[in-house]
Amino acid sequence: MAGPYGSHRVVTLAERPVVPPARFADRLARAADATGHAGLAALLVGVGSDLRYLTGYEAMPLERLTLLVLVPGRDAFIVVPRLERGAAEAGLRTPVDIVTWDETEDPYAEAVAGIGAVHGARVAVSDTMLAMHVLRLQAALGQRVHTELASTVLRELRMIKDADEIALLRLAAQAADRVVAQIAAGRLLGRTEADVAREVRERLIAEGHDEAHFAIVGSGPNSASPHHEASERVIGAGEPIVLDIGGTLGGYGSDVTRTLWVTGGDPARGPDERFRHLFGVLLGAQAAATRAVVPGVSCEAIDATARRPIDVEGYGEAFFHRTGHGIGLEGHEDPYLVEGNGMPLSAGMAFSVEPGIYLAGSYGARIEDIVVCGPDGPIVLNEAPRELYVVDG
Amino acid sequence: MAGPYGSHRVVTLAERPVVPPARFADRLARAADATGHAGLAALLVGVGSDLRYLTGYEAMPLERLTLLVLVPGRDAFIVVPRLERGAAEAGLRTPVDIVTWDETEDPYAEAVAGIGAVHGARVAVSDTMLAMHVLRLQAALGQRVHTELASTVLRELRMIKDADEIALLRLAAQAADRVVAQIAAGRLLGRTEADVAREVRERLIAEGHDEAHFAIVGSGPNSASPHHEASERVIGAGEPIVLDIGGTLGGYGSDVTRTLWVTGGDPARGPDERFRHLFGVLLGAQAAATRAVVPGVSCEAIDATARRPIDVEGYGEAFFHRTGHGIGLEGHEDPYLVEGNGMPLSAGMAFSVEPGIYLAGSYGARIEDIVVCGPDGPIVLNEAPRELYVVDG
Repeated sequence: MAGPYGSHRVVTLAERPVVPPARFADRLARAADATGHAGLAALLVGVGSDLRYLTGYEAMPLERLTLLVLVPGRDAFIVVPRLERGAAEAGLRTPVDIVTWDETEDPYAEAVAGIGAVHGARVAVSDTMLAMHVLRLQAALGQRVHTELASTVLRELRMIKDADEIALLRLAAQAADRVVAQIAAGRLLGRTEADVAREVRERLIAEGHDEAHFAIVGSGPNSASPHHEASERVIGAGEPIVLDIGGTLGGYGSDVTRTLWVTGGDPARGPDERFRHLFGVLLGAQAAATRAVVPGVSCEAIDATARRPIDVEGYGEAFFHRTGHGIGLEGHEDPYLVEGNGMPLSAGMAFSVEPGIYLAGSYGARIEDIVVCGPDGPIVLNEAPRELYVVDG
Repeated sequence: MAGPYGSHRVVTLAERPVVPPARFADRLARAADATGHAGLAALLVGVGSDLRYLTGYEAMPLERLTLLVLVPGRDAFIVVPRLERGAAEAGLRTPVDIVTWDETEDPYAEAVAGIGAVHGARVAVSDTMLAMHVLRLQAALGQRVHTELASTVLRELRMIKDADEIALLRLAAQAADRVVAQIAAGRLLGRTEADVAREVRERLIAEGHDEAHFAIVGSGPNSASPHHEASERVIGAGEPIVLDIGGTLGGYGSDVTRTLWVTGGDPARGPDERFRHLFGVLLGAQAAATRAVVPGVSCEAIDATARRPIDVEGYGEAFFHRTGHGIGLEGHEDPYLVEGNGMPLSAGMAFSVEPGIYLAGSYGARIEDIVVCGPDGPIVLNEAPRELYVVDG
């Protein structure tokens, strides 16, 4: 099979897909439609992943306003600082009218001038727009206009990944998998977490990432802190390491977690019984949650599926974060696999499945894959073994 | 002299200053005072440079809310996701009460619960807070509360750099200067702009930067586009390159621009007369604007000083951006040297002085230094020669 969700489609790094211009035009048209259907007067898209998704333009986030303005039934235009015109022309992957502003002009008034900002009108701004722009746009629109988040209309579009997006997510996942294997096979004992984190970042780039975004290296008691910042702690024998790494490749995120145990070559310093039990429970929970992925099942049901075996074994309090987050042009985006989110999964959604068990003061473990909801069930993008990596270090 | 602005104070990379905990406590106290004096009910500081400035905490920008809440006359507290508690404890450089929230709780209501959000109250949010947080905070505060930007109270504090901040800015500037020298001395001919940009980024890190943020390499006609994105264009003989590079070192920004001319070793392919004239005018303008820096002179007066000689020589239309921007924990921050900004300079302000002349379709040039306003005049942090770098390439 070679459909968009085909797990047999093999794409190498050299064949990395590029989203074609027609796709951006289609996304823009669908975003304008969704804006109209939502009854919004306009969609105001600042620099960030929404802009990249709709136009391909990867602009730098600046204090100078760059803003794509979508008013239903009219041609989209983008307001850019005059000295960004060249960058915008080169970066826009589909034709959009460019309106430039000079250093001494007010771009906010210009941007909202064409919006029918009548009393009670609603306007959406992109979720990652900076406050300095949000508040100035609100002031330009006036108090009679209500502002809301663009995700209310863009969420549906961005959540469903197309074949090229899934291919990029897969390439990113596989690149991160290779880094996990390299780190597990290399020296760990006697090195600081920060030193290992540096190596992770370098290897993510070497394996094809555009950028390395994070490298959590939580050793010993630090493994019990889910978002531990890699520190100057020296890795010792007889302790676990939670390795959670990721970045972007072709704009799309990787995010994989594996748990290691460093013995120092001493069989007596292998994982203790409690850790083996905890890890076995976690492995089962992660597999169960992954298996449960299929269109129609709710996000919170996947979360509950991960939580159940952990609760049963008495670790419920030790798993205190959601089971997963969507991933795409943002490292964290919709859908969120969390209690209270009744949204059903659809084919093409991509997200992490990452339960963890953390015993404060002792140690912890986490296993994370990126999973795509296929038409008939889960498609797991990460291929690195999920079992505990017991290594000499 | 060894005062805070002393240009004779030599600090090596190994002696990189670390802002002491007492400094953060002092900044927090001053921010709370300024909040009260401005008549604001609260200052709400999200992840970003304001948070780092006030507490030292470099949190990751996430969809989960992290928010420092400053209410005049009360102890500051910070709302963090439960799984960021460890990171917050490790990252906060001065004691601040930590309030954690769980995945299924509403942190926005919690954050604003203690604010006297009476009708007509004003609350400030940090300028780089994401819209997803701004709009949810506004909803939690209700319509009777007016939101404004935190820069109205933090600008005055953050603009005036202390001795440690200036030392870090100087280290960053010197590191970027070394990279300019290395690039100018290396091979350029036949390489793509993007390839040179990659080398710049690697060298910025090798010279001590935390991160490389940008590397503009504008060759030939691309030199006429001030914010040109390094492209696949191959650098040829007989053309200029605008090299504008920067990143952060110890959190503080570097940003330097020099203009090169590649001859390919052929004396006949040196800069033509028009370019030599244009560059001479630019060099004079940049020097004049720098010399004009002294406390009490307005930002727009510095801009006008840079503009005057360029206008006189008929290049006025070709210098279409402001003369400079402040720099510190943000690459672009207050003060902005631009027409309409009548704010007087004060000792301790740090900013770029970077006029440029761009002839669309032909070529352009820019010269940029980071300058600190000293008590008696300018202190220029960059030391790389400002003249045109005529190189074989």
